[in-house]
Amino acid sequence: MDFLADFLVKFISQFQSPTLGFLFGGMLIAALGSRLKIPSAIYQFIVFMLLMKIGLNGGIEIREANLAAMAMPAFFSMLIGVIIVILGVNLFRILPGVNKLDGIATAGLFGAVSASTLAVAIVMLEEEGMFFEAWAPALYPFMDIPALILAIVLANIHLKKEKEGKHTNVEVWKIVKDSLRGSALSALLLGLALGLFTKPDPILDSFYEPLFRGFLSILMLIMGMEAYDRIKEL
Amino acid sequence: MDFLADFLVKFISQFQSPTLGFLFGGMLIAALGSRLKIPSAIYQFIVFMLLMKIGLNGGIEIREANLAAMAMPAFFSMLIGVIIVILGVNLFRILPGVNKLDGIATAGLFGAVSASTLAVAIVMLEEEGMFFEAWAPALYPFMDIPALILAIVLANIHLKKEKEGKHTNVEVWKIVKDSLRGSALSALLLGLALGLFTKPDPILDSFYEPLFRGFLSILMLIMGMEAYDRIKEL
Amino acid sequence: MDFLADFLVKFISQFQSPTLGFLFGGMLIAALGSRLKIPSAIYQFIVFMLLMKIGLNGGIEIREANLAAMAMPAFFSMLIGVIIVILGVNLFRILPGVNKLDGIATAGLFGAVSASTLAVAIVMLEEEGMFFEAWAPALYPFMDIPALILAIVLANIHLKKEKEGKHTNVEVWKIVKDSLRGSALSALLLGLALGLFTKPDPILDSFYEPLFRGFLSILMLIMGMEAYDRIKEL
Repeated sequence: MDFLADFLVKFISQFQSPTLGFLFGGMLIAALGSRLKIPSAIYQFIVFMLLMKIGLNGGIEIREANLAAMAMPAFFSMLIGVIIVILGVNLFRILPGVNKLDGIATAGLFGAVSASTLAVAIVMLEEEGMFFEAWAPALYPFMDIPALILAIVLANIHLKKEKEGKHTNVEVWKIVKDSLRGSALSALLLGLALGLFTKPDPILDSFYEPLFRGFLSILMLIMGMEAYDRIKEL
Repeated sequence: MDFLADFLVKFISQFQSPTLGFLFGGMLIAALGSRLKIPSAIYQFIVFMLLMKIGLNGGIEIREANLAAMAMPAFFSMLIGVIIVILGVNLFRILPGVNKLDGIATAGLFGAVSASTLAVAIVMLEEEGMFFEAWAPALYPFMDIPALILAIVLANIHLKKEKEGKHTNVEVWKIVKDSLRGSALSALLLGLALGLFTKPDPILDSFYEPLFRGFLSILMLIMGMEAYDRIKEL
Repeated sequence: MDFLADFLVKFISQFQSPTLGFLFGGMLIAALGSRLKIPSAIYQFIVFMLLMKIGLNGGIEIREANLAAMAMPAFFSMLIGVIIVILGVNLFRILPGVNKLDGIATAGLFGAVSASTLAVAIVMLEEEGMFFEAWAPALYPFMDIPALILAIVLANIHLKKEKEGKHTNVEVWKIVKDSLRGSALSALLLGLALGLFTKPDPILDSFYEPLFRGFLSILMLIMGMEAYDRIKEL
């Protein structure tokens, strides 16, 4: 407990950004055994609001942007997702005591993107005043899906090798569809489509935009509380 | 699926209003099998927020309006509710294979008003820049209640005719009270009363008004997802 | 019912503040048997939002304030909490037919503070334009905890006297910790800490502040509906 308090004090004094403040605040009250809970309906709604806002913003920006400018970043997003999985799988192969399938699954998750982390990263960049193209979040699926597919393909090949007789087919298209149908990615893609094909600017400016930072602060609080619970489990 | 996509593309290109965009977006992601769900607690809260805002607005407007100007529209609202039920019941009588009671129930529902549809209609009018009296939503109960009562009275008369011996009384006042106690109508009437008898203008301007459009966009999304599920059931 | 309606009409005409309007509105629709319900997830979130805002505000103000100025009010808050319990316990001792333990528990609750009542009181002061130090809500725990502890200590002494043989220890520190861990007090204290040690001003101004009055109006509505249910139980 003592080292944790020390760690927290240092971080808080360095990063006084509200985003990090709420994260460490969540960890702190979880460590102190607070009974504060954010209802799960609110959590789900917050994730929807954040990704819808990121999607709408991205869609509007793509509409006004040079599509060719997005092609290279999209390609490299796919590449990074794939490389992380390949590196990860080989790293876990070297490490002793790691089950091969567990290694592939872990590598796949690290190649894919976390929607909440994406939302936090975007706000951190904004707070630091660092420029980024508004369509950057639209690269999410380009990194997410290839990583997940590759991990599942690798796992299937591994399983096939083990029981040679059976011939299991990897249904790539089914995996893509299933990944796109997840609630977080659905909200992001729907936001992108609405930003591209409709004129949602008034709603974005009056509703999604002003609530974004505030809802993110609550998401950070929840993530902080969960992070502490995970650390304690180790 | 193909005709649906075609239909959607045409509509989206014509109506780029965010309100319709979210409706079609909801249908689209439901058709694509998305797992996105808006928690029911959020849905209930959104309906409350929309009707409370419509009520507050209406109440404030009635306070400042000429009450005599509302008398005629209120009367005609009742008349329209009643006429729709009578027309509906007779239409279903002509159609073969429709159970008499089912016909009466359906006609009653069409004579009554849907709170969500009302909210959407109001925003569509605002978006199109079409003028309407702000107390117009206050006509809701005048159309809703007579239609429901007439439908229930007709159903009771029909049942009485079938089993002549029994003498069932239609308790009109009980039906009115029960209708007024519904959560959507309660929120609208409470908003009306608060708009009439208190001074809620600051809260309306700082809270209910700015959130109205945004919450409506989410309601449209939910309605779109539900509409697709219903269409698929047919 | 008649005297209630009369009472409500008088109050509504005198206090047209939206805060009181929503409270009486809630009582009225509960009395009329409305089925309107605010989901409990929304209720919990509203309480969190209100106390987080009060805490953030208080923390920022303490950071900029003269800490010495807070010392005396903090001391008197503790004193008042303790005095209310002592007075209450002795009052209930005089009253016939009140169980000693029930009397102590009731006195303890009245010495402690209700977070919702605090939120309402703050808004009432603001609406009336009465000045108060922004760190005033930070006195909450100073009044709350001593009152609870004293009540529990008194109850334990009473129980010990009854069964002389047993020697029960009152674990004061455990009671303090448990009280601080409650969800409402956690949110308030976390807000205070974030206001003191981070710079949450942008989020406070863009999110917590504008939503405060609106969420309070819904809390008042819920409190009104509950108040009626409690009154009816008597």
